[in-house]
Amino acid sequence: MRIQLENVLPGDIEKRSFELIEQELKVELDPKLKPIIKRVIHTTADFEYIDNLCFSENVVDKGIEAIKNGAIFITDTNMGKAGINKKALERFGNQVYCYMDDVDVAEYAKEHGVTRAVASVEKAAKLNKKIIYVVGNAPTALIRLYELITEGKIKPEVIIGVPVGFVNVVESKELIMKTNIPYIVARGRKGGSNVAASICNALLYMIP
Amino acid sequence: MRIQLENVLPGDIEKRSFELIEQELKVELDPKLKPIIKRVIHTTADFEYIDNLCFSENVVDKGIEAIKNGAIFITDTNMGKAGINKKALERFGNQVYCYMDDVDVAEYAKEHGVTRAVASVEKAAKLNKKIIYVVGNAPTALIRLYELITEGKIKPEVIIGVPVGFVNVVESKELIMKTNIPYIVARGRKGGSNVAASICNALLYMIP
Repeated sequence: MRIQLENVLPGDIEKRSFELIEQELKVELDPKLKPIIKRVIHTTADFEYIDNLCFSENVVDKGIEAIKNGAIFITDTNMGKAGINKKALERFGNQVYCYMDDVDVAEYAKEHGVTRAVASVEKAAKLNKKIIYVVGNAPTALIRLYELITEGKIKPEVIIGVPVGFVNVVESKELIMKTNIPYIVARGRKGGSNVAASICNALLYMIP
Repeated sequence: MRIQLENVLPGDIEKRSFELIEQELKVELDPKLKPIIKRVIHTTADFEYIDNLCFSENVVDKGIEAIKNGAIFITDTNMGKAGINKKALERFGNQVYCYMDDVDVAEYAKEHGVTRAVASVEKAAKLNKKIIYVVGNAPTALIRLYELITEGKIKPEVIIGVPVGFVNVVESKELIMKTNIPYIVARGRKGGSNVAASICNALLYMIP
């Protein structure tokens, strides 16, 4: 293989990447959803997300409104937390939390025989705050969110439901899509903390 | 869609996931590489990594030896750093660093018209330490590593070269595979900080 590097200035790499993605899209996308879909492809180099990503009606507007109203982001991994652009969060003073390593979460999980992701959801559910749930790893978190929502105990602003994996992942996402909570879901097995963070960032960057 | 959840205890989810991956592999894999390939699939739900992942000869043994000898991990993203299992690092006292947000790195990048990823490589190259480079994002980091290696200025223990994306990503990985440095590379466009971290974790978990 002859290796020919493309000469792109550091500040132009992301722009050039998005141009290349645009060229390869080959389908018309809803202009409101396109920045999110393109950013997920930018993060994964996986064009399957064109089909996988599912959006509830007006979720982009609702997500942006929640961000403007100071909603907090709660992630199910520290990787997801690390991936959300802190500079972009500053504008409306949004905070991002991950409870997975908290001692009380570990204790609750052990005591109740649940995952730490479920214990984190329980902890967050007790907060009296506007919450955007960002699930990139644990389907158990989505399942517990579904239960609490259907029991009328919580009403998140938005759920970004993109766990990756093999055990109850597909099913947990379908559950979330049955609720009346605004959602962005990556249907199927694919997703991840990187996908979760990129969706958050896409929403943040879209705010005019 | 009828949603039927599989009943798996919290502590058994990962085990069950790996069983499901094993069932779907459908190819014989080198037993030494298999734990890495399976963990990357576990992280991405993407079986393309069976073909994408490229390993230099004896890289697993060399990686494990470097870890045992206290090599430091240097990542090109905070997400990659966040994803490496800190508990697993404790055993041989390995540290993981990400210089991307360092003030001196930002200054160097600006002054020299390079990416912060390149500036991070320059900073790391000045250390007199055994280094495992973990690149999940920036092809520019791999390209600079290639240059420093071919100039005889550095000799990393291992390069985990799995940046994701569209601009010079494919090419940067091919460059690394031309060196005599032990590597694990995800050929093509795919990869990411999650993939990078999962490869590190797989190596850490393999140590008997």
